[in-house]
Amino acid sequence: MEGGNPRRHGLNMQTPHRKAPGQEPNLLVSQQRKQLCPWVGFVKIHAPWNVLCREAEFMKLKMPTRKMYEVKKSSGVVGKINTLVNKVLEPLHPHVEEHQPKNIKHLSHTFSREKQHLVFYKYQPIGLVRKYFGEKIGLYFAWLGLYTQMLIPASLVGVFVFLYGCATVDDNIPSMEICHPKNNITMCPLCDRVCSYWKLSTACATARASHLFDNPATVFFSIFMALWAAMFMENWKRRQMRLNYEWDLTGFEDEEVSGDHPRAEYEFRVMQKSLCKDQKSQQKVIMPVEKLTYRDRLPAYMTNIVMMLLMIGVTFAIVFGVILYRISTKAALHMSSNPITRNHVQLTVKTTAAIINLVVILILDEVYGAVARWLTVLEVPKTDKSFEERLIFKTFILKFFNAFTPIIYIAFFRGRLVGRPGSYLYVFESYRMEECAHGGCLMELCIQLSITMLGKQLIQNNLFEIGIPKLKKLIRYIRSKQGAFQEEERQKKLQRYETDHFLEPFAGLTPEYMEMIIQFGFVTLFVASFPLAPLFALLNNIIEIRLDAKKFVTELRRPVAARAKDIGIWYNILRGVAKVAVIINAFVISFTSDFIPRMVYQYMYSPDGSMHGFVNHTLSYFNVSHFQDGKETMDPLHLGYSIEICRYKDYREPPWSATPYEISKEFWAVLAVRLAFVIVFQNVVMLMSDIVDWIIPDIPKDISLQIHKEKILLVDLFMKEEQGKVYILESRPSAGGTEKCSRSNNSNSTVAHPHSGLHTNNNKNL
Amino acid sequence: MEGGNPRRHGLNMQTPHRKAPGQEPNLLVSQQRKQLCPWVGFVKIHAPWNVLCREAEFMKLKMPTRKMYEVKKSSGVVGKINTLVNKVLEPLHPHVEEHQPKNIKHLSHTFSREKQHLVFYKYQPIGLVRKYFGEKIGLYFAWLGLYTQMLIPASLVGVFVFLYGCATVDDNIPSMEICHPKNNITMCPLCDRVCSYWKLSTACATARASHLFDNPATVFFSIFMALWAAMFMENWKRRQMRLNYEWDLTGFEDEEVSGDHPRAEYEFRVMQKSLCKDQKSQQKVIMPVEKLTYRDRLPAYMTNIVMMLLMIGVTFAIVFGVILYRISTKAALHMSSNPITRNHVQLTVKTTAAIINLVVILILDEVYGAVARWLTVLEVPKTDKSFEERLIFKTFILKFFNAFTPIIYIAFFRGRLVGRPGSYLYVFESYRMEECAHGGCLMELCIQLSITMLGKQLIQNNLFEIGIPKLKKLIRYIRSKQGAFQEEERQKKLQRYETDHFLEPFAGLTPEYMEMIIQFGFVTLFVASFPLAPLFALLNNIIEIRLDAKKFVTELRRPVAARAKDIGIWYNILRGVAKVAVIINAFVISFTSDFIPRMVYQYMYSPDGSMHGFVNHTLSYFNVSHFQDGKETMDPLHLGYSIEICRYKDYREPPWSATPYEISKEFWAVLAVRLAFVIVFQNVVMLMSDIVDWIIPDIPKDISLQIHKEKILLVDLFMKEEQGKVYILESRPSAGGTEKCSRSNNSNSTVAHPHSGLHTNNNKNL
Repeated sequence: MEGGNPRRHGLNMQTPHRKAPGQEPNLLVSQQRKQLCPWVGFVKIHAPWNVLCREAEFMKLKMPTRKMYEVKKSSGVVGKINTLVNKVLEPLHPHVEEHQPKNIKHLSHTFSREKQHLVFYKYQPIGLVRKYFGEKIGLYFAWLGLYTQMLIPASLVGVFVFLYGCATVDDNIPSMEICHPKNNITMCPLCDRVCSYWKLSTACATARASHLFDNPATVFFSIFMALWAAMFMENWKRRQMRLNYEWDLTGFEDEEVSGDHPRAEYEFRVMQKSLCKDQKSQQKVIMPVEKLTYRDRLPAYMTNIVMMLLMIGVTFAIVFGVILYRISTKAALHMSSNPITRNHVQLTVKTTAAIINLVVILILDEVYGAVARWLTVLEVPKTDKSFEERLIFKTFILKFFNAFTPIIYIAFFRGRLVGRPGSYLYVFESYRMEECAHGGCLMELCIQLSITMLGKQLIQNNLFEIGIPKLKKLIRYIRSKQGAFQEEERQKKLQRYETDHFLEPFAGLTPEYMEMIIQFGFVTLFVASFPLAPLFALLNNIIEIRLDAKKFVTELRRPVAARAKDIGIWYNILRGVAKVAVIINAFVISFTSDFIPRMVYQYMYSPDGSMHGFVNHTLSYFNVSHFQDGKETMDPLHLGYSIEICRYKDYREPPWSATPYEISKEFWAVLAVRLAFVIVFQNVVMLMSDIVDWIIPDIPKDISLQIHKEKILLVDLFMKEEQGKVYILESRPSAGGTEKCSRSNNSNSTVAHPHSGLHTNNNKNL
Repeated sequence: MEGGNPRRHGLNMQTPHRKAPGQEPNLLVSQQRKQLCPWVGFVKIHAPWNVLCREAEFMKLKMPTRKMYEVKKSSGVVGKINTLVNKVLEPLHPHVEEHQPKNIKHLSHTFSREKQHLVFYKYQPIGLVRKYFGEKIGLYFAWLGLYTQMLIPASLVGVFVFLYGCATVDDNIPSMEICHPKNNITMCPLCDRVCSYWKLSTACATARASHLFDNPATVFFSIFMALWAAMFMENWKRRQMRLNYEWDLTGFEDEEVSGDHPRAEYEFRVMQKSLCKDQKSQQKVIMPVEKLTYRDRLPAYMTNIVMMLLMIGVTFAIVFGVILYRISTKAALHMSSNPITRNHVQLTVKTTAAIINLVVILILDEVYGAVARWLTVLEVPKTDKSFEERLIFKTFILKFFNAFTPIIYIAFFRGRLVGRPGSYLYVFESYRMEECAHGGCLMELCIQLSITMLGKQLIQNNLFEIGIPKLKKLIRYIRSKQGAFQEEERQKKLQRYETDHFLEPFAGLTPEYMEMIIQFGFVTLFVASFPLAPLFALLNNIIEIRLDAKKFVTELRRPVAARAKDIGIWYNILRGVAKVAVIINAFVISFTSDFIPRMVYQYMYSPDGSMHGFVNHTLSYFNVSHFQDGKETMDPLHLGYSIEICRYKDYREPPWSATPYEISKEFWAVLAVRLAFVIVFQNVVMLMSDIVDWIIPDIPKDISLQIHKEKILLVDLFMKEEQGKVYILESRPSAGGTEKCSRSNNSNSTVAHPHSGLHTNNNKNL
């Protein structure tokens, strides 16, 4: 029986609180031998059939309606099929561990078949996963499967958008104008003193590259991705409904299971409090304080808020530190006399800064995880559910800020706080704020995004998840070689449950979900600037889904099976991310990319309605004699001729106007159009998402039909039973019959409608 | 028994489809005498107790758990209390009709006590309403009650905002500047040829009045109202949950009742189609076509879309017509030689136009109601529920457009399409587009809003609802006088059910809800321009709630009681209106009111950071010599001196600039700030609404505690029963015992969990 039904296996561990006094005599407890693992004790509990029955009834487990032996037969058939399937597939999966019983082998086989990702990933045996791990983990894998599946169309469209950018790069008039050899626009120096004037045509490569990500197709793509996110939500709702139906959770309510009994830590605090009170007022008897009030929790709450703000402040400080690093290194490298160093300034600085950023993000991720857990423990939440939700909420906020602050800085602030030639903005009085390369900051945003995303995925997900277990195995192997045979011998002698105990404990699904939600953020939030994000996510997930499966099956202790109807708070977080994504994409398109200035030029300023002259239009004039003292370049003849007027990217009045270097009318016009675009984009996309939400029904049609049919069946059953009753009634005196009817209705009703059965005092207001 | 339990009374009428063949012998049908109303037949159905039992079980009605006589006793107690209460309250309510049985009298008494609105309006006897009319109507009155209750704080704050405007009107620098006698700004003529130049100081009164509605407090108020709407939604969810619990609908699902059987019209169409098919292919036997396909419905859908667009077009056309009326009348009146007429031009035109608008809205409302019904009938929806939803959707769209198009025109388009002096925009080549009076269009918006809202409420709701029944009564009275005594005699001889039959039939709750939703629109959509709207709505509703109650109790046939768990599509419509309200309010504040230009002036252009000079800043210069030929005023010396430069309200370059009369930089700056305000306002308010949504739990704490306690009770009951079972088991052989356990679990499970009981084939994927 131990291995037969995995659910029953976990039953007693799961509901220790249900063992009310007076029920214990039903259980037989046998202490197991301890010699092999002296620091752990194992207790084997034999529960009689009726205790199991009762527990199953409490947990609303599905029971076979036939008698016992038939079920056994059916599971035998499944077993036979399994062994058959195993035999057929055996050659493909040679690494079966010796100790694993048949059913685990089978599960690990179909579930984590690493060799066949591409073909079989969508045939995850969700039903088996659920039977072995419980609904909660089953739902995680179902969700991950659906997400991966949904990423396929997204990455296809993303690749098309990217290819469209590649194909049209030669027709792009602004980059053609920049690259044209006749173009001899002289730009103002990029840094004080050491830099000199430069030709715009040297920015040709950057301008061409930035067209790949900054073309009209990205507008379409970000609308598409917003709708994709809405569609994904809807599809998940439907999938969840279908699973609920298949797994028979339709009548199940979340609170019934894990939620409602207080955690041990909470009860300890309550007891402490009541003891404390008792000591103060010694005359009274011990009165149990019922709960912790807000006053008890105030210190913890304050610590929480302060720590959260501090952590977010740390994130900001680190981002600012990286900016300073970039500015100062750039300045230092520019000053170097080695011409090769000076030529590679941009590349060196960008690469090192991005790597520093990535490393900081990876380290802080771990730190923040620990801090969030510590803060939640401080809070002493009442129930496990509330503990989990608070932990998730905090972790999410910290990790989200950690992952996205540098990106948001690049997207919306970098290059905007530069000032203008002659009155640049300085940090610490000597470092000029960074500018973006010509062609907008979109390119840099894209680089930063891809490095962060790929780095996070490769290092955090795959390296940590594959590498560290391998490392551990290696260490164990080395140690076992050193420790001679007896260790190995002992390992072999261990019981199954002892070997299992040496595996890593299961740390909850939070890290798994969190990883995916942050990825979802990368896929949706800045998709306007990086259309290949879904593709990278897809590639990662195809590996991830198998790695997770393998980890759960072979490397972790089997988690206690928990039931769940939905993915809980994660769904809300997903919705929130999808909502924020709409706004951020609107801003990226209108502020980070050059889409709006191009449109404005074409329809408002262009003399012939084409894009010719756009580059010239976006550049303002600066009279070199207006440089502040000590800030002018040391090498004014770098380009071979003397320069009076240089150009810079901004909408400002020329030096010869009445108000030189003031913000020009074009600036305000472009800004107004940009803001109008944000409003239109946001509302149109939100409306479309709502329409998607409204059109796709939450319950799949076949499921609702099925539920309807079952209701009709139930009515039929009822009719038949009633017919029988009437038959009995007719052979009795009528008065007793009435009573009988009412009584039988009754007893049905108390058992039949648990929600309503106890409301009989409801008639008081009749 | 007929009058005792109102629910049982409606039972047979409600479920005619349940009378499957083979069940009929249980019913006794007796034809009633017909002589008095020859064109109507009444059938009295006597259903035996067990049939009623079964029906009740199907409908999941609550049954008393005690035996029968106890229930009778309890209802007797209630009856005694009722008569006692009746006796106590009798003097206050003398108009009790003779024919009404006791319980109806009681209901009408506490429910529609017209004399005591102010004290008792929130003590609607919702429980009684539900018992008499069913859950659906009960929910309507509960919703109406909550809405009215929620309007109290809203109208209080609205009144405060209005009073704040009144109090600060003398400190308002722009209106002070306009009214200052030294101010001698000469404005350009308001119409071609017949109008002349005018002094800005003559607009003093308007400027002061518009400050009442256009001050910083309205910004606060519209944020408040957006949160109020979110709060209202949340409160309603909680109230609904509480009612669901009290009325025992927690286990009830909507589809079970009315929804799923097709309407007669639908089945007729299906039959027609199958007959048609049959005639075409005569060789086959009749095969019932299962459903109408999209191809069958295409003509109806097309008609629907075309008609809807046509109707919306009609609305637009009428709004445009009213605009033309206003323009042409104004022009005509300006030309009149009578100076009194000319002085009252503004007032006359505004009043008549608003009245025309109101009349058109009232007429179109009725027309649109009929059109929507006709269109829905054309569509032949499958079920009653779908019929109702489609009808509501169409009616809502049409009525919404009807009520709000003129207002939206005034808020966002009027005064914006004017052009500028020297190149005005003309309609039909001779009529200049309207301008707003100085001080913004907010004042006119406010007038239009209050007239439409008050007019609609007074005429449509109260006059129609009180007046028409009174009129009918009067006519009946006159006719009865004419028709001598026999008519009256006959009336008296009629049975109760015959008198009831002569009442108006119940037309569904749609008109009642619709009225309230449109009102909710007035309260939320343009609240930034009319902070008194909640107050007017509150005053209306206090009367409305009683009128509705009276109508339902005394003037309509008693509706067939229907169960419902929620208010259905109306909730979604409310949410939609609340969402749209946020956006519209953002636009009203930033575009219709002068809030943003004032802020921009104060922080960007003002030399001393105060509002002094704002009026001058908003006015552009126009050189009189630039008027087109034939458009200049005929009376250039109207003000007593000759004029070279006149002013007009716009941000344009002065005539002496390089680009005269071009849109100026200030215009773009103000526009950008306006748009930025919209983005910030919309997102902040949406975020705050989401937070409200998230903080307030959907289920009230006491209800969830109660549900939890009941679950524990159920577990206890179960334990006890199991203990008994174990006792029996112990006195038997163990093998049979196991089987017994599994079997009894079983039969419990099939009856106990109707959702899960039939899933036993679910183990197939084991």
